[in-house]
Amino acid sequence: MPNNQTTVDGQHVAALRDRIDPDGRSGKVQDSAATRIAYCRDFGPREDDFLPAFVVFAECVEDVQAVLSYANDHAVPVIARGAGTGVSGGVNASENCIVLSLERMDRILEIRPEDEVAVVEPGVVNGDLGDAVAEYGLMYAPDPASYRQSTIGGNVATNAGGLRCAKYGVTRDSVLGLDVVLADGTLLHTGRSTFKGVAGYDLTSLFVGSEGTLGVVVSATVRLRYLSPESRSIAAFFPTVEAAAAGVLAVGRHRVQPAIMEFLDAGTMAVIDAGFGTDLASRGGALLLVRTDGHGARVEEAIVREALTRLGAQLAAAGDDIAARLIEMRRSSRGDIQDDEYRVGEDVAVPRSQLVAYVHRLSEIATEHGVMLRIVAHAGDGNLHPTFWVAPEDGADGLERLARALDESVRGALDAGGTITGEHGIGQFKRRWLGWEQQEEVLELQRQIKKLFDPHGILNPGKAIL
Amino acid sequence: MPNNQTTVDGQHVAALRDRIDPDGRSGKVQDSAATRIAYCRDFGPREDDFLPAFVVFAECVEDVQAVLSYANDHAVPVIARGAGTGVSGGVNASENCIVLSLERMDRILEIRPEDEVAVVEPGVVNGDLGDAVAEYGLMYAPDPASYRQSTIGGNVATNAGGLRCAKYGVTRDSVLGLDVVLADGTLLHTGRSTFKGVAGYDLTSLFVGSEGTLGVVVSATVRLRYLSPESRSIAAFFPTVEAAAAGVLAVGRHRVQPAIMEFLDAGTMAVIDAGFGTDLASRGGALLLVRTDGHGARVEEAIVREALTRLGAQLAAAGDDIAARLIEMRRSSRGDIQDDEYRVGEDVAVPRSQLVAYVHRLSEIATEHGVMLRIVAHAGDGNLHPTFWVAPEDGADGLERLARALDESVRGALDAGGTITGEHGIGQFKRRWLGWEQQEEVLELQRQIKKLFDPHGILNPGKAIL
Repeated sequence: MPNNQTTVDGQHVAALRDRIDPDGRSGKVQDSAATRIAYCRDFGPREDDFLPAFVVFAECVEDVQAVLSYANDHAVPVIARGAGTGVSGGVNASENCIVLSLERMDRILEIRPEDEVAVVEPGVVNGDLGDAVAEYGLMYAPDPASYRQSTIGGNVATNAGGLRCAKYGVTRDSVLGLDVVLADGTLLHTGRSTFKGVAGYDLTSLFVGSEGTLGVVVSATVRLRYLSPESRSIAAFFPTVEAAAAGVLAVGRHRVQPAIMEFLDAGTMAVIDAGFGTDLASRGGALLLVRTDGHGARVEEAIVREALTRLGAQLAAAGDDIAARLIEMRRSSRGDIQDDEYRVGEDVAVPRSQLVAYVHRLSEIATEHGVMLRIVAHAGDGNLHPTFWVAPEDGADGLERLARALDESVRGALDAGGTITGEHGIGQFKRRWLGWEQQEEVLELQRQIKKLFDPHGILNPGKAIL
Repeated sequence: MPNNQTTVDGQHVAALRDRIDPDGRSGKVQDSAATRIAYCRDFGPREDDFLPAFVVFAECVEDVQAVLSYANDHAVPVIARGAGTGVSGGVNASENCIVLSLERMDRILEIRPEDEVAVVEPGVVNGDLGDAVAEYGLMYAPDPASYRQSTIGGNVATNAGGLRCAKYGVTRDSVLGLDVVLADGTLLHTGRSTFKGVAGYDLTSLFVGSEGTLGVVVSATVRLRYLSPESRSIAAFFPTVEAAAAGVLAVGRHRVQPAIMEFLDAGTMAVIDAGFGTDLASRGGALLLVRTDGHGARVEEAIVREALTRLGAQLAAAGDDIAARLIEMRRSSRGDIQDDEYRVGEDVAVPRSQLVAYVHRLSEIATEHGVMLRIVAHAGDGNLHPTFWVAPEDGADGLERLARALDESVRGALDAGGTITGEHGIGQFKRRWLGWEQQEEVLELQRQIKKLFDPHGILNPGKAIL
């Protein structure tokens, strides 16, 4: 019923404009084709090709409340989004949905340097918060590769990780409290603004990572960490993947907790070489990039350099800034090309001791199914991002091989005691595997929690849980 | 109907013996008066004086499942407990309840040093886990003052904090996954055994800190941290409370994150002096105990010493082990005497910048209401433990003054942007203040979550939420 649908949507548009933008000057409610297309998806794969009926650009808490309570009354799906840089399809449009963009709510409401706390609206870009607190010698620790684009609201929705989180924790570890609008428009205050607090159930953690399916975050109180006065970066080329994985464990055995410890295989080095004109791939079969920070940065650097050299690594000269530059290049080594149906980046995590065995398994899988593979990993966390791809000219057969390889790689991570998603979230794309990881009782409990928070099922339906 | 009740209890005892201890040899089900008295409460204040109908000592997951599913069928309250060292009345008996002790489930199931993970039963004593992983150069970070008695299960139930948590996080930050028996006996597996993972809702964090009201933890997968190769302890005596609080902020401004940073006022020093024969109280009006660790321990020690000296602190000589011994004494400076109706220890937290103002407020309150006061604080967290007391001979009037002082101290913490409980939990005792901190919508949502997990309300009724 496309005609009828258009009419109904038109009524919704008019009704919402009336409520939040009566004189129509701020363009808070937009239904042009261009806007609907621009806001229909994130950087992940798509299951279908719906466009939102229209897009609302909220500018304040009351706007969000108005949209949700209206949508709840009329049973219209609402998909809240930040910058749309997610890679699991977490904000892909449903049929006849409203996309609720939080990008205009981008104010840093408070920075309290002595309390080491900031309060931000959801549309604040991660890197902008980092810049703002840096002048106080502080940092917002979670640093997804998308930190220059992605928003704190989106980071909270996906419980985003990043390079620094082996030492400083993921988004959940930095969120002290939230203001959240529930499906019916109620404004809820969870958590606290102190570092510690155990009053009642941990609703804050329940919202973090729930991908907009339980409520819409309109403000976050976050803990800041110390911006290290010094950091030291180490680039260690290893002859083999095995030797590099041994290096990861050796760093741990020397009781050094690096701020960053990234693993790059030959294929990933080749991508960086192609993009930046470097010659990494000629220098070894695997690369570890390690950064130590804090007041012990130099002591730890010396320990790491010695431990890795003893394992046969070739190290860039100390003090050479090649390692620091490589870490920046690595940040952009996956986000360069949007995934499509012929190329999919994965996000599994395994216990650290399983890194070597799992990397081997990935190679076997790629060979077995005739697909291309390269791997980058947050090695300190055991969080791997293998990328599988086939040539588009392989057509349907290539896609089938790709799908089988993906399935087996995920199964392999679970067999190794791991998880199907280390930091990207389930979104729409990974629901296919969620039942492999979680028992039916857990799936059912999640459904019931969802129903409790969102009885009419308007909040980002078909995402995050199964 | 005491007689009738006794009969019903007798039936329950027989039925449960039949299910989990048919030959009666292991004494899993006990109803002697001595046992019922020993297991009727924790170290916190009591609201009433119920004894459990009987006590079950579970030895395996199946025992817990049998108890809960039986209790669920017969609508009998079940209060799970570890060592009973809590101080908020979280395991105080309800009328005709079963107390379910997990202390016999005390096996460390796995230690995986390379993964930096351990899997433990709930009855494992915190300090025993620490000892077991120390030989691998690892530690279990959360260290409540009760760590030599309290169990991991109890720590999980209360989301226990401790001295080290400013740097290493609270219990929640160390729990990766849980096995939990739900009210109906279902065994649920939450979380994962990798450091990172974002599949589905964070049920693990929902159980952590829920004080046995949503389920009974039968196994925990915990993250271990590096046992520092070196640590340096600093004892800094300040002329005034204000100067010591300025010291806390100065350490932060120098971007040092100490492993421990404890604040002791004159009253707390006097308690240590009385217990250990020291002469702390003669050396200043407030004491900061700071411990730096990690590979930067010495660098950080030097920074802290200089910063505190500049603020007028008198420091114990570097290398002198007085500071390390004082930290151990401080661990026992509150747990020495069980609180009673005339003496209550509080557990508020405030933003760090509010420490001085709040300490002043506490003094005013004590003077105003004629009650005694001493304060110890995990200063790095802004988590204060004021102890208020009156002389028992003051009788009812004293108790009234004590109650008013307590109320005002809690109100003062909230006014300062803080919380009514930093690490002890709500239990039974602090429910009186929960409505001051949480809006009705949060209270109601918690009630609904409780109902979802425990429809018959058998799990630790009357605790944790309002």
